[in-house]
Amino acid sequence: MQTFARCLTSSTLLASALTLAGCAGTAKNASYEVAEVGSFHVGGQQVTLSGLPAREIVFTAGAAPRKVDPNGDFESGQMYAQYVKLKNPKARYPLMLWHGGGLAGTTWETKPDGAPGWQQFFLTQGHTVYVPDAMERGRASWSRYPEIYKTEPFFRTKQEGWELFRIGADGSYHSDPAKRVAYAGTQFPVAAFDQFGKQSIPRWATNDAATQAAYDALVQKACPCVIVVHSQGGNFAFNAALRAPDKIKAIVAVEPSGAPDPDKVDIKALKAIPFLFVWGDFVEQNTSWKQYIQAPNKFQQALQAQGGVADRLDLPQQGIKGNSHMLMMDRNSDQVAALVQAWMDKNGLMK
Amino acid sequence: MQTFARCLTSSTLLASALTLAGCAGTAKNASYEVAEVGSFHVGGQQVTLSGLPAREIVFTAGAAPRKVDPNGDFESGQMYAQYVKLKNPKARYPLMLWHGGGLAGTTWETKPDGAPGWQQFFLTQGHTVYVPDAMERGRASWSRYPEIYKTEPFFRTKQEGWELFRIGADGSYHSDPAKRVAYAGTQFPVAAFDQFGKQSIPRWATNDAATQAAYDALVQKACPCVIVVHSQGGNFAFNAALRAPDKIKAIVAVEPSGAPDPDKVDIKALKAIPFLFVWGDFVEQNTSWKQYIQAPNKFQQALQAQGGVADRLDLPQQGIKGNSHMLMMDRNSDQVAALVQAWMDKNGLMK
Repeated sequence: MQTFARCLTSSTLLASALTLAGCAGTAKNASYEVAEVGSFHVGGQQVTLSGLPAREIVFTAGAAPRKVDPNGDFESGQMYAQYVKLKNPKARYPLMLWHGGGLAGTTWETKPDGAPGWQQFFLTQGHTVYVPDAMERGRASWSRYPEIYKTEPFFRTKQEGWELFRIGADGSYHSDPAKRVAYAGTQFPVAAFDQFGKQSIPRWATNDAATQAAYDALVQKACPCVIVVHSQGGNFAFNAALRAPDKIKAIVAVEPSGAPDPDKVDIKALKAIPFLFVWGDFVEQNTSWKQYIQAPNKFQQALQAQGGVADRLDLPQQGIKGNSHMLMMDRNSDQVAALVQAWMDKNGLMK
Repeated sequence: MQTFARCLTSSTLLASALTLAGCAGTAKNASYEVAEVGSFHVGGQQVTLSGLPAREIVFTAGAAPRKVDPNGDFESGQMYAQYVKLKNPKARYPLMLWHGGGLAGTTWETKPDGAPGWQQFFLTQGHTVYVPDAMERGRASWSRYPEIYKTEPFFRTKQEGWELFRIGADGSYHSDPAKRVAYAGTQFPVAAFDQFGKQSIPRWATNDAATQAAYDALVQKACPCVIVVHSQGGNFAFNAALRAPDKIKAIVAVEPSGAPDPDKVDIKALKAIPFLFVWGDFVEQNTSWKQYIQAPNKFQQALQAQGGVADRLDLPQQGIKGNSHMLMMDRNSDQVAALVQAWMDKNGLMK
């Protein structure tokens, strides 16, 4: 870790890519003093179901169904956050890692290829790290539908993940892993794509307001903090900052899939918050992402126009090629994380 | 932590309850050197859905539904495990904490009242700790039903939890927290019962074989190990030990809800594995638990009869009154954990 820290100190954000590549492996050998590993649920409320007919549920395959009463009180709408609190953090604020759509906090943990992910990276850099699961995902749990959640969930196919996460071009997925054709030069560990598929979590299309409320409650409970947010999480983090600008000390938006429209939302409150927008490769070749990137770009420009810090880390433009949408799982994830860390250093977020 | 370790060393399992009560708070102030925090999914396989009609899904409340193709490849049947690896563990083997039915690994993390749970306790005692989520729960994710999972899930009501987890007698639950009547002298933090309700996770009745297969794969991946297992997890741990007796160095069964029948299953392979069965209070007053305890008791007696170590920690018999089924969340959870730790010390599981 000390070797790595020296690498960071001697580099600047724009010139550091090649220098840092030689340092990126060292975090794997680091260790850190932990005061507490723990978790909590936050948000949500009691929901009562009544008057529903008994359900017939099969308890043993082939056996006759038994009647079960579905009525009663449940907790619903909460989210989950796990934390690793360092004894002596070097960062001024806890770091939160917010996942994207159809996924959970596992995004940030060990990568599908078994190498350490961003949670471990930022722990070795001296951050207390929180990894939440949004409402309805992972350890947050989910509620009966259509009685509590109003619609049915989606289950993302591996093909959709392959294309949307820009592992390969549209139509290049195949059920047989040997026949999948990834983008030339991809940094994603393609042999671990099925392992990544095990992280996929059902999601609902109609829970956004409740999810935002839970994130807002999380911010009230655990911040001031710095948020690193991915994809669908972007909108939740941007809106959380609009609602509690004093609580959020920086936002690193990794390929956000959306953003508030500065023509419709007053973003003045965000002026004091430094933003970094991180983008991988193949965006312009991807039908979906060519569209998705428009709103975050407009948002970034509006933040800059009002005089705030709203930097851009466009990896291909810096000579770092081949990153997918899941760049925290790519082979060079430590290299990208080191650039994020250097930006945090530059913006006064470390002690 | 050193103070606490001394307390443990000077006590024996049977005489330690009162001594340890005075030491139980010290774990909260401990810290420990961590080499890595991480996770993985294990088990499961690709499942392909085809020929299903398009689903109509409402994306925005009130808007017309859109058609979504549910067909494609998915990963299904995997489970999840998170680990905190100590740099210099004092235990000979990693410790696994397996949760019970309708719950996830959160069982072992911070307690619903905000105090540290058994994960933190055993980390401070020098164990590398794994906390899995069984197939279908938490970060393990779950699959479409009835197309992949064959039946619909259960959602446990808070009333069922209140009664089954022996917070209060049958009929003593009320939707209004102020009107709930807990067992006199309960150790469960009753004011945090709704917070505990947020940990509740839907479950299926027909996934036991697949869940066992995933646990077996976990044992192959991450053991040799010691397993602390709760409630519904008991059967999975006992069967995992029957399938891989060399991999499992001890089992602490906390209120197992079932066990293999030694009249039907050959348990000779388990003779070298030390077992500890831990039981809380109010068992004989509870209609369900009076029944559930029979199979584990018969199993324990058969383990003893063949000359193995199969100890019993009956808390009320040791003068420790008021523990619920969720004794790792009870106010005296550190006291109970310390008795488990003392048993591990006695059985040579520490360096």
